[in-house]
Amino acid sequence: MPLSMYQASIPLLVRGLDNLSAVLKKGAAHPDAAALVEARLAPDMFTLAGQVQRASDTAKGCAARLAGIDNPGFPDTETSFAQLQERIARTIDFLNGVKPAQIDGSEDKAISFKAGPYILNFTGTSYLTTFVMPNFFFHATTAYDILRHKGVAVGKMDYLGALPAQPAG
Amino acid sequence: MPLSMYQASIPLLVRGLDNLSAVLKKGAAHPDAAALVEARLAPDMFTLAGQVQRASDTAKGCAARLAGIDNPGFPDTETSFAQLQERIARTIDFLNGVKPAQIDGSEDKAISFKAGPYILNFTGTSYLTTFVMPNFFFHATTAYDILRHKGVAVGKMDYLGALPAQPAG
Repeated sequence: MPLSMYQASIPLLVRGLDNLSAVLKKGAAHPDAAALVEARLAPDMFTLAGQVQRASDTAKGCAARLAGIDNPGFPDTETSFAQLQERIARTIDFLNGVKPAQIDGSEDKAISFKAGPYILNFTGTSYLTTFVMPNFFFHATTAYDILRHKGVAVGKMDYLGALPAQPAG
Repeated sequence: MPLSMYQASIPLLVRGLDNLSAVLKKGAAHPDAAALVEARLAPDMFTLAGQVQRASDTAKGCAARLAGIDNPGFPDTETSFAQLQERIARTIDFLNGVKPAQIDGSEDKAISFKAGPYILNFTGTSYLTTFVMPNFFFHATTAYDILRHKGVAVGKMDYLGALPAQPAG
């Protein structure tokens, strides 16, 4: 059965957000947790909070634009791990409220939106594959990288999440 | 037209590798280029060279496993930006040699491989969406993050690559 637009988008994003939530839980348990929320890898990069907000925005923007429904505005006011977890939970709830039938068939749908001084013009497929996927995983990875750089004991399997594994021979 | 397995994999990975190549070119132009190849964000994370090697492996593994063809072994011997660019070019060549007809229809194909002490068992779809996508972009992003953290003037648009944009209003 061919890959549907829903399969290629919403479950991956929900999984990525669940994994990001698990990574952040390890950050919240660190002695320097309060400072970590504002940590960044370079002075002009987003903080950890900013990375989570951008991952959230990329995921909800994808669901809203492919489904052609209203994209809820989430103000970027989070200053604690607890608030970042709420942001992720709210994003997952929004994604889970979108049904496959709302997304499927959006391959050739015209998707246009403002990004800084530009209007970006995509089809559903090019939006998903050249913007949403690289951008979502960019922000989820950079959140992980910030915590890893600051000494939080997160590992690659926290980022990837559970995989169907069996011991090798 | 539904998203084909080829569309959802090879062109994204080639684009991601092209963008990684552009990011590395900016690293190579930095005064500390030689040291950057061995830079990392945490003592027990892969170096920049390691991140590029893992991005390459994830991309060529995807093409080989979905197509059911031999996965060429690329030894992890790169110690310079020039050699990392060769690794990327060789990976892109391999991906470009795989035709859509070899990949399409692999949605339900059983994909199993050894990863450390485990055997991972996927379908084509779960392999692509829960392993290849997050893992490829993890390593491409972390390569970018290492360079960004070390002061190389790369920007998000180097990572994302050219997008179909027009000035807003």
